[in-house]
Amino acid sequence: MTQYKLAFIGFGNVGQALARLLERKRTELAARYDLSFLSVAIITGRHGAAIDPQGLDIQRALKIIANDDNLNELSTRATPKSMLDFIHASQADVLFENTPVNYENGQPAVGHLQAALELGMHAITANKGPVVHAYQQLTQLAASKGKRFLFESTVMDGAPIFSLFRSALPAAQLLSFQGIFNSTTNLILTRMETGESFAEAVAYAQSIGIAETDPSGDIDGWDAAIKVAALVNVLMGVAVKPAQVTREGIRHITSEQVRRSLAQGKRYKLVCSARRTPQGVQAQVAPELVGADSPMYNVMGTTSIAQFETDVLGQLSLIEADPGPHTTAYGLLADFVNAVQPI
Amino acid sequence: MTQYKLAFIGFGNVGQALARLLERKRTELAARYDLSFLSVAIITGRHGAAIDPQGLDIQRALKIIANDDNLNELSTRATPKSMLDFIHASQADVLFENTPVNYENGQPAVGHLQAALELGMHAITANKGPVVHAYQQLTQLAASKGKRFLFESTVMDGAPIFSLFRSALPAAQLLSFQGIFNSTTNLILTRMETGESFAEAVAYAQSIGIAETDPSGDIDGWDAAIKVAALVNVLMGVAVKPAQVTREGIRHITSEQVRRSLAQGKRYKLVCSARRTPQGVQAQVAPELVGADSPMYNVMGTTSIAQFETDVLGQLSLIEADPGPHTTAYGLLADFVNAVQPI
Repeated sequence: MTQYKLAFIGFGNVGQALARLLERKRTELAARYDLSFLSVAIITGRHGAAIDPQGLDIQRALKIIANDDNLNELSTRATPKSMLDFIHASQADVLFENTPVNYENGQPAVGHLQAALELGMHAITANKGPVVHAYQQLTQLAASKGKRFLFESTVMDGAPIFSLFRSALPAAQLLSFQGIFNSTTNLILTRMETGESFAEAVAYAQSIGIAETDPSGDIDGWDAAIKVAALVNVLMGVAVKPAQVTREGIRHITSEQVRRSLAQGKRYKLVCSARRTPQGVQAQVAPELVGADSPMYNVMGTTSIAQFETDVLGQLSLIEADPGPHTTAYGLLADFVNAVQPI
Repeated sequence: MTQYKLAFIGFGNVGQALARLLERKRTELAARYDLSFLSVAIITGRHGAAIDPQGLDIQRALKIIANDDNLNELSTRATPKSMLDFIHASQADVLFENTPVNYENGQPAVGHLQAALELGMHAITANKGPVVHAYQQLTQLAASKGKRFLFESTVMDGAPIFSLFRSALPAAQLLSFQGIFNSTTNLILTRMETGESFAEAVAYAQSIGIAETDPSGDIDGWDAAIKVAALVNVLMGVAVKPAQVTREGIRHITSEQVRRSLAQGKRYKLVCSARRTPQGVQAQVAPELVGADSPMYNVMGTTSIAQFETDVLGQLSLIEADPGPHTTAYGLLADFVNAVQPI
């Protein structure tokens, strides 16, 4: 049985859910994949860092975070002076990078992943920034080191989008896709159907922790645009930056419009799409009125959908219901298993 | 570049679509997978057989079939005395088995696939019989020979169901599934919504070549039951035969019932399902009334859907629109690529 040493940059809801899922799956990973692991390093924004090459006590680490204490007490090594120092000192085989997204240039996550790959670690992230800003570079670096750069959780949480095309749809060409990739705006539009104003629906999404204090990244379509860019980069092989995605948010839609359209059998959805054309890939995010004959019509609340048009199948749709930190964590776990299994 | 010799048992709509798809993808398979192929043997029910270790002219073979002539004229070898003689004489690396399904015991397809595997060929089929009657046996035989037994096209045509769980959802446990897997009954129920009687809808499905002259295999739920059994055998690891699937068809549903339900916001669908319970897997096929909140509600005509409940994600649904011989052919091609790629 091969044992892998794991390091975690970022240990918020997703990192903690991943740690719990790994423990729950420990026996199954050993039995099905002959695979074991040791969590050796964690670094956080607000709760310090801990490194122990003999393995950290994950239950204690989770309790320390829950109690708002500092992880340093678990560490058998000096507190790292920098993130690169931490990555180096961890001596891990796999790095899980879960810092917040940077729409502009993907940093500092790109640097973290690059450092890990250069040290011969597999680099796994739920952070969309590095996918849209450094996909080619990190993938080539990984290949040159015989390692993997994987990021299944960046679009539709743990639903298998990237691995679908990587392994389950060989020799298929992706011609176009469309979908609903931003949970917050879909939840807001769903709430507006019941009569809530835009502001009320935003406040509700914030109250349950779906929308951030500044919700503009969702509402103005940035989160959706970066996901479109990630899919175009990886699945269509065309380098597109989020700023190159034509983008229109939902800020101007009123609940009167929403309800009037619904009465006419149409729903507003923030539709993400991209299509190959002779002039290159056209990518956009924009509110659209969707009829009941579309699988998007019944995609409500935080559920998401992707529809793929290829050269070999009819339209193929994937719908993921009930996402959350635990499903994002599953995408990271799946990446780990796929990274360390022989290809 | 590795060259694989291909043999085809059965060369009807699906076999011909596969031959055309292989030719269309020849350049792409070479470029992306460093993979080439030679079609060396074809045997049919009504158009004879042809074997040429140097490679058959596939365009001519397709013309011969279109003209209702006999393939023997292409052959450089003696006409095989039996199917086993054909398999042996083909000296192929990959066998595509596409004979009609036998619900009872999976024969003669099981024997064909077994013979191919014993001779060291990869065995690929769109035939559901061998999956429900000999999945464990053929999979173990394949493993013992270092080859693959693959069958992606047996459920939802070429949509990636089996490969999704094989490679894209590692360490996931399938707890239950439900779906619409039989195109003919779904088309009949869709037509009945517009006022056609059951008999008229069946006649329409026959007129466009979807339903067979004796449509009972579809209408009484046998085709759906065998697909449920295939998924339970492979994805849940439990040996279930089609006869063990609780089965109710759509013969007794009237168009009055269909239209009355539709007026109340419900649609009749022939729902396939299976669920792990403490007493084992409960599997069934039965008409159900489905509301607009279900992704199944809008699955019309020949479109199909599978919904999976796992221990790691929320409900994951896959919808395939516009199936046909070309999408079944793609599933066979995908199996070929996956079989010969290093695992």
